[in-house]
Amino acid sequence: MKDTATTERLTALIDREDPRAIEDFLGRLSSPEIAYAISRLDEEARSRLITLLTPAKAADILRDLPDEQAAGLIAELEPGTAAAIVDRLPADERADLLGGIGSAESRAILQAMPVDHATRTRELLLYPPDTAGGLMTAEFLSYPLTTTVGGVIDDFERNRQRYAEFQVQYLYLTDQAGRLAGVLRLRDLLLAPRESNLSTMTIPNPVQVGLEVSLIQLKQLFDEHHFMGVPVVDSGGRIRGVVERTAVEEAHERAERNSFLRVSGIIGGEEFRSAPFHRRVMRRLAWLTPNIALNIMAASVIALYQDTLRAAIALAVFLPIISDMSGCSGNQAVAVSIRELSLGLLKPGEFARVFAKESSVGLINGMVLGLLLGLTAFLWKGNVYLGLVVATALAANTLLSVLIGGSVPLLLKRLRVDPALASGPVLTTITDMCGFFLVLSIAQSIVEKL
Amino acid sequence: MKDTATTERLTALIDREDPRAIEDFLGRLSSPEIAYAISRLDEEARSRLITLLTPAKAADILRDLPDEQAAGLIAELEPGTAAAIVDRLPADERADLLGGIGSAESRAILQAMPVDHATRTRELLLYPPDTAGGLMTAEFLSYPLTTTVGGVIDDFERNRQRYAEFQVQYLYLTDQAGRLAGVLRLRDLLLAPRESNLSTMTIPNPVQVGLEVSLIQLKQLFDEHHFMGVPVVDSGGRIRGVVERTAVEEAHERAERNSFLRVSGIIGGEEFRSAPFHRRVMRRLAWLTPNIALNIMAASVIALYQDTLRAAIALAVFLPIISDMSGCSGNQAVAVSIRELSLGLLKPGEFARVFAKESSVGLINGMVLGLLLGLTAFLWKGNVYLGLVVATALAANTLLSVLIGGSVPLLLKRLRVDPALASGPVLTTITDMCGFFLVLSIAQSIVEKL
Repeated sequence: MKDTATTERLTALIDREDPRAIEDFLGRLSSPEIAYAISRLDEEARSRLITLLTPAKAADILRDLPDEQAAGLIAELEPGTAAAIVDRLPADERADLLGGIGSAESRAILQAMPVDHATRTRELLLYPPDTAGGLMTAEFLSYPLTTTVGGVIDDFERNRQRYAEFQVQYLYLTDQAGRLAGVLRLRDLLLAPRESNLSTMTIPNPVQVGLEVSLIQLKQLFDEHHFMGVPVVDSGGRIRGVVERTAVEEAHERAERNSFLRVSGIIGGEEFRSAPFHRRVMRRLAWLTPNIALNIMAASVIALYQDTLRAAIALAVFLPIISDMSGCSGNQAVAVSIRELSLGLLKPGEFARVFAKESSVGLINGMVLGLLLGLTAFLWKGNVYLGLVVATALAANTLLSVLIGGSVPLLLKRLRVDPALASGPVLTTITDMCGFFLVLSIAQSIVEKL
Repeated sequence: MKDTATTERLTALIDREDPRAIEDFLGRLSSPEIAYAISRLDEEARSRLITLLTPAKAADILRDLPDEQAAGLIAELEPGTAAAIVDRLPADERADLLGGIGSAESRAILQAMPVDHATRTRELLLYPPDTAGGLMTAEFLSYPLTTTVGGVIDDFERNRQRYAEFQVQYLYLTDQAGRLAGVLRLRDLLLAPRESNLSTMTIPNPVQVGLEVSLIQLKQLFDEHHFMGVPVVDSGGRIRGVVERTAVEEAHERAERNSFLRVSGIIGGEEFRSAPFHRRVMRRLAWLTPNIALNIMAASVIALYQDTLRAAIALAVFLPIISDMSGCSGNQAVAVSIRELSLGLLKPGEFARVFAKESSVGLINGMVLGLLLGLTAFLWKGNVYLGLVVATALAANTLLSVLIGGSVPLLLKRLRVDPALASGPVLTTITDMCGFFLVLSIAQSIVEKL
């Protein structure tokens, strides 16, 4: 089906106010198709769609949408309607979603939810989202050590429906005090007689993490081990939830993605074009406004050399080229440092290594690029001195840019500033200043020959 | 332990040629610590380390390293030594590793491997890495439909050791012709008597994918469904392997990461500073050289207006600012389009939507930024016309940049060029040309007032 046709058909069904037909229609679409169609509705049609559906069906649809889009949709609804829908989500997704909207809105929604669910969700909201507490799910199975294999099987039989969506690979075992005492793989149950006691089969001292363990630590843990989930315990050693491998992978992916977007100047999480206009404007300006100040600072170097520039006006052509090329070279070094830092292959203190490794690359690349640009200048004006000025300045500034680009992420990391957010502007400001200064000061010294 | 101390200690142990002590030492380190220490050895020490260890232990270490680093290490070894190590890796990782090194090296290694392993690995290498065939593992369990529950349990008992590392959540069932006929969750076995026939419990027509299904399609499949793995069948319907959720997540993460690096001008996969010098230089130049040509093209606009510029030399200060700020605004629009495209929220044909959504944002942001820069120009020179030229040019060029930035990824996608790789250079070239033209042509028309 044509993409616009999907949206038109959905709009028509919303206008007919026929929930059954809408559910049938959406049921035939894939998640991206649903996300696409919904993002193309206007705000009013979107709210009407959600209120027409049963809360359970609306919750299903929310789970198909990217996080930011789902949060935006919920924030648009009446708190009562939103609460009924949020209540149908699994406990951990409930907290993730409410964590993504304004705190006033999320408080209103929690107040409209059944008290016990609201309390549990508030508890999960207490943990920062990128910690074991914030990432864990409450959908896990734990049994006292004294349970028999037959007891577990009977429990499975009784709760067949409730457990249907659980990803069960492990059973967690607790002692009398409720502390985590062991873990068991599901398949081990198969090999044991029904009357065996779980305590005889358990792997004692299972790997476990505290509620406060960070996403980065969890990612490392799952990279090193092959488990599908790890139990989360509180300070008393009691099991509070399980962090699944997939939750860690997803959160890590989101973190990397946001870091990618910040490099391009999209801050405060993802921007979708379906988001409110004023939010898109403000978020983009929040990045652009400091940037223009830095740019003015850098270009003020040119103001100091106006006479030289007037005397050798051809240089004005090369100033933006040198600025842009130095930025490109420096950004390559920035990207390599950010990656090496995030993989632990580079420590924030290793400036010497970055300098050693970048200086040789910068020297060669600077010479190649300088030669290319210098030759262009010479061929254009037939003035060998113009070529020399341009070539020298670009070569030197390329070297400088990769040294600065390689080390700025380390410096920012030490200052606890996000390298993805700030490396670019810091780098271009410094290398622009240096580049303009190099071109114009060298030119000034031989201005009569240009 | 201090980071440099780790490397020094490892070097000392290598010099003592004591494999046991090395294994003990590495056994106490985490994966990132091992990767870090190895990246700090020189090439010769690295090769000696690997040859001192048993092939099995060396294979363990390779699995701890980032892919590019592992491939680099294997490529440095003698084919015979490399083959012995590669042979200890799981079948799918073997193919991934060999796929990451030169084809001459990988052929030599395959020739030194046992014939049957080499054949199976060559088979996996036939499938492109980002397809179901390239991502699948051979570690899965399948049984004829006629097997009983007891038969499966006996098989588990017999192969306890071989299956130890398998991620078993599902059993796959085949008909007499060997075609995939059903799937069974491990936990369902628990609830059935030993003499039941698997055919009575199976879920028929399981979700399955062909060998050629792409990473993007697999990612969508796993996003929509909660399974941990999906069976891969050949054109005859026979099961050839299983793609696990984790394999898809990892490959997707790698693809996103490479896309992030390409935006910054790191092409051809990740660059680590431990890679050979000439490769780092050549890869970076491969991105910089076309860029300098584009830059020269853009700046040639300035050459056309040398007289205007000489007459109003203050403008030279603002040319690089307008170039850089337009680039920043445009890049925000690029990043949003790339994300929306990759999520399926934007189709490559929807230029009209991008124009509509970006024009309003570009208008506001252009006015804000134009005002700021125009005011700066006015305050600096006390010339209101200078302020007006600068403000008008930046405002107009910001609008233009977001329109172009938002639509370039769509255009490149239609032309089947990677938007992450080419959007930046295309965008800056066009917006630089337009920016320079706007400033200088407006200035020319009122040059006597500047």
